[in-house]
Amino acid sequence: MHFPSFAALRKTCLDLPPGDATAAATAAGRDAMLTKPPGSLGRLEDLAVWLAQWQARNPPRLERIEVLVFAGNHGVVAQGVSAFPADVTAQMVANFAAGGAAINQLAAVAGAQLHVVPLDLDRPTADFTAAPAMDEDEFLRAVAIGYDTVPIAADLVCLGEMGIGNTTAAAAIAAALFGGGGARWAGRGTGVDDHGLARKRAAIDMALRRHADILDDPLHVAATLGGRELAAILGAALAARRQRIPVLIDGFVCTAALAPLAKLGANGLAHAVAAHVSAEAAHRTLLEELGLKPLIDLGMRLGEASGAAVAALILRAAVACHAGMTTFAEAGVSDKL
Amino acid sequence: MHFPSFAALRKTCLDLPPGDATAAATAAGRDAMLTKPPGSLGRLEDLAVWLAQWQARNPPRLERIEVLVFAGNHGVVAQGVSAFPADVTAQMVANFAAGGAAINQLAAVAGAQLHVVPLDLDRPTADFTAAPAMDEDEFLRAVAIGYDTVPIAADLVCLGEMGIGNTTAAAAIAAALFGGGGARWAGRGTGVDDHGLARKRAAIDMALRRHADILDDPLHVAATLGGRELAAILGAALAARRQRIPVLIDGFVCTAALAPLAKLGANGLAHAVAAHVSAEAAHRTLLEELGLKPLIDLGMRLGEASGAAVAALILRAAVACHAGMTTFAEAGVSDKL
Repeated sequence: MHFPSFAALRKTCLDLPPGDATAAATAAGRDAMLTKPPGSLGRLEDLAVWLAQWQARNPPRLERIEVLVFAGNHGVVAQGVSAFPADVTAQMVANFAAGGAAINQLAAVAGAQLHVVPLDLDRPTADFTAAPAMDEDEFLRAVAIGYDTVPIAADLVCLGEMGIGNTTAAAAIAAALFGGGGARWAGRGTGVDDHGLARKRAAIDMALRRHADILDDPLHVAATLGGRELAAILGAALAARRQRIPVLIDGFVCTAALAPLAKLGANGLAHAVAAHVSAEAAHRTLLEELGLKPLIDLGMRLGEASGAAVAALILRAAVACHAGMTTFAEAGVSDKL
Repeated sequence: MHFPSFAALRKTCLDLPPGDATAAATAAGRDAMLTKPPGSLGRLEDLAVWLAQWQARNPPRLERIEVLVFAGNHGVVAQGVSAFPADVTAQMVANFAAGGAAINQLAAVAGAQLHVVPLDLDRPTADFTAAPAMDEDEFLRAVAIGYDTVPIAADLVCLGEMGIGNTTAAAAIAAALFGGGGARWAGRGTGVDDHGLARKRAAIDMALRRHADILDDPLHVAATLGGRELAAILGAALAARRQRIPVLIDGFVCTAALAPLAKLGANGLAHAVAAHVSAEAAHRTLLEELGLKPLIDLGMRLGEASGAAVAALILRAAVACHAGMTTFAEAGVSDKL
């Protein structure tokens, strides 16, 4: 994919295919015939219908689940916003490659394939307290890389990230899109102390002042305050939507990366479900702003698509019930149930 | 197992082995070395340590997960407390045997073996508004059946039930143990209307008055207000505790069946985790009374151990991370993380 300009990308973001209402209706019709009281599987029922709607297929299937983890480095770490050195990003990418990280284990449990895409780790984005994190070309290239990472044959995509400093970028995007400044959106990320938290808030507020003229445009916000891995996540979600692949959103950073899509058009994230709510407090706030209801709440705050991979297990449960259960008529069970 | 008397069962309930503190400490020590920030996997970390503690083994394993579903029928349905005829219990047991129910699919996804144990379905318990649901022998036999159903080689047991009318029994037990009467504990179960709900509350309050003299003894409560499948669940949890097998508790009925164990001794359910919180409102109240924090909250209200089977997937995720992740030293990742 090549996006020659913000305008071209914006056009793509605003021209999104709807879900398949027929597949959704067929799935809901089947659900009503299964040997259980209506509604008794709760969100598992909704998830099966949602998968059918966005895969345009009933029953939905999860033969190929792709976990896509994008990694990037951030100039804003110069502001002392992270407890960890930037080279941990590359170390963790090496750990992903070696199979030793949490997401390797979780992807295996979920029966998913893991793809890790490092984005210019040795060339961090600019420190957005001083300049836009990325210029237009840089941002559009990262979006396109994310777009092209989505395999057309995937049945579900789990999106996630790794990047020292990227909760600061996520908080800045959330603050720009939903207001409230650093005090509302900065959290302890992967363990900053009180001083680090104060620096994080200050960096966000400084960035909001410096870039006040672009804050009303979600794509400019993503380019100016985000990072390459966040841009790639946005691109991947776009590709998934256009290729009829439902998406599981991981934690705070991933949600912030996708928030511009929701802000651009009311149904921009209709093909995506929030996998979990992170222990990073701002995530709950951001999900509420976006009207997203997380599937799980286990106090996770690792990133790496770890929450999305765990939630993929719940989708497997939903699909198994939907596709495998017998109907009242087949089972000879009283359909008064 | 044979429990010759309430006194013998009570003795067993009060003589429960503790978890293995050494295995728990070893697990926690390993967790601290894994390539993630401490605490960043949230409850997945706690679950791995909990499994190690109650399996007395580190790393914990989940090679053999057993889903045990006990089924019973209830005389109290004569009070019009259920929207469904009692023969649906047997129909659903046949559906389990044929592989067509939700729990068949969910057990398969969880890699678990399913055992369904129907308990005298053609001979419902007595209507507890008029007489004790079970006499001492009947109750103790059902407890023993549950006890003997737990395979000693299991690594995890998921407990669940099926029984038309059993949310009324569960509510009566909860009311007896924690107070508040039918108004606090009766819910719509599998879909009773307003009149049915009123009858359910009235039946519970009538039973509490009739059996006022036994309400201070948790085992008499279980026998007098419960049902065979609830008694069997209690027995299965006892067997699991004595054989070092952790337990996942399913929904409202299953939790109520186990509540007497907690009421008898403060740590009676220490080897058990609440898999989920059901859409049946009283379940949240009961979990709070018991100090249990559910793993998932997906609006499920089916029973059949369905919530426990879904939660078993989360335990698989926890064990995979704990056993499979590499350490900081092995990976060459900065342990400042």
